[in-house]
Amino acid sequence: MMKFHILTLFPEMVEQGLNTSILGRAIENGLISIEAVNIRDYTENKHGRVDDYTYGGGAGMLMQAQPVYDCHRAVSGGRNVRTIYVTPAGRVFNQGLAQELSMEEELIFLCGHYEGIDERALEAVATDRISIGDYVLTGGELPAMVMVDAVARLVPGVLGNDESASYESFSDGLLEYPQYSRPALWMDKPVPKILLSGDHKRVEEWRHEQAIEVTKRYRPELYEKYSEKINEIKKH
Amino acid sequence: MMKFHILTLFPEMVEQGLNTSILGRAIENGLISIEAVNIRDYTENKHGRVDDYTYGGGAGMLMQAQPVYDCHRAVSGGRNVRTIYVTPAGRVFNQGLAQELSMEEELIFLCGHYEGIDERALEAVATDRISIGDYVLTGGELPAMVMVDAVARLVPGVLGNDESASYESFSDGLLEYPQYSRPALWMDKPVPKILLSGDHKRVEEWRHEQAIEVTKRYRPELYEKYSEKINEIKKH
Repeated sequence: MMKFHILTLFPEMVEQGLNTSILGRAIENGLISIEAVNIRDYTENKHGRVDDYTYGGGAGMLMQAQPVYDCHRAVSGGRNVRTIYVTPAGRVFNQGLAQELSMEEELIFLCGHYEGIDERALEAVATDRISIGDYVLTGGELPAMVMVDAVARLVPGVLGNDESASYESFSDGLLEYPQYSRPALWMDKPVPKILLSGDHKRVEEWRHEQAIEVTKRYRPELYEKYSEKINEIKKH
Repeated sequence: MMKFHILTLFPEMVEQGLNTSILGRAIENGLISIEAVNIRDYTENKHGRVDDYTYGGGAGMLMQAQPVYDCHRAVSGGRNVRTIYVTPAGRVFNQGLAQELSMEEELIFLCGHYEGIDERALEAVATDRISIGDYVLTGGELPAMVMVDAVARLVPGVLGNDESASYESFSDGLLEYPQYSRPALWMDKPVPKILLSGDHKRVEEWRHEQAIEVTKRYRPELYEKYSEKINEIKKH
């Protein structure tokens, strides 16, 4: 069983958002566990405060080192657990990193809020600093949930047979081709004839062409990489 | 008031995950509204089904056109509302796109699940196809929530004064410098002396140097862009 611990000031947000559908079933089946831990429970401040002003000036409050460090210590129990601080100031998450993280037995995600977290606590507990993309969010909870989702679905057994082969964009460097389901005619719009032909080779060719078109349109830089790779292969 | 509509098979996941902290307060204050709509409520299938096999073969089920289209029609009410299909096969979300979307009065996010959605429904309703990054997730709900969060926080009044200036990575092309809060000495680790000096000019310089170091370390390609820009400015 792979264990995910999410250290946050908003545990209810995390628990409810990850307990549905595929991950909910994986939790029930004992394949993964997801635990949200409230950092506030570990503050030594008698008013329950976890934040204070930033040294050197600047708007906004910073999460203090003590509650973050003590919360992490309680969760890791002194074990050497890979700990990801969720922050725009980190390397960018991608499918390769999701694969790498899915090899761990246990992961801790540390979610900042307000201005972030005192650097001394981060130096003491974070093994990785990871961003999910170049945009600013109100806190680290949603990006932590995104990473947990991407990693958890790679744990063996989490995806059913029907799902495991599915939706695998990026595996060949192209985006996914358009797909169609019943009925064959919907609001005067027919499914492309070739998909009804039963000719698997031609269907594959059509899908590949479509994947190239989609990638060119939305991600020209991915298409560039793809054609360089193909040209390399052709040369050899 | 800016209105967000999220069309999904898992409305409870979306509502609970976005109703906390800053966005929860913005909803209470009437600055934004977030409505999750269950696509399943619009299926004409008498067993409540919304998915079927994919034409042309392939593992996994596809969401059918009819329930998606009818759900969208009910929510948009015939108005011309910008509608974002959340998919890895789209352009990549970033802070500029968040700014652009925050100018709209109303947005619809369409979340796929399983293999995705019948292309004919997407052609009929989606004005944009957007990905939050190069990784695969179990569904479109979490990325839709990420985009709603990034856009909603830019709506005037949603962030308090303390928060508005805060956490603005990317604004100058560099990642954020390390920050420190009380106490000045924690577990034998002192705050960098310069931050206690009261010398604002030197603090700014130190922070800028630190931001450059952080960016070089985690995002060398961002640092490249930044130095090109600086060199351009110096030339003129």
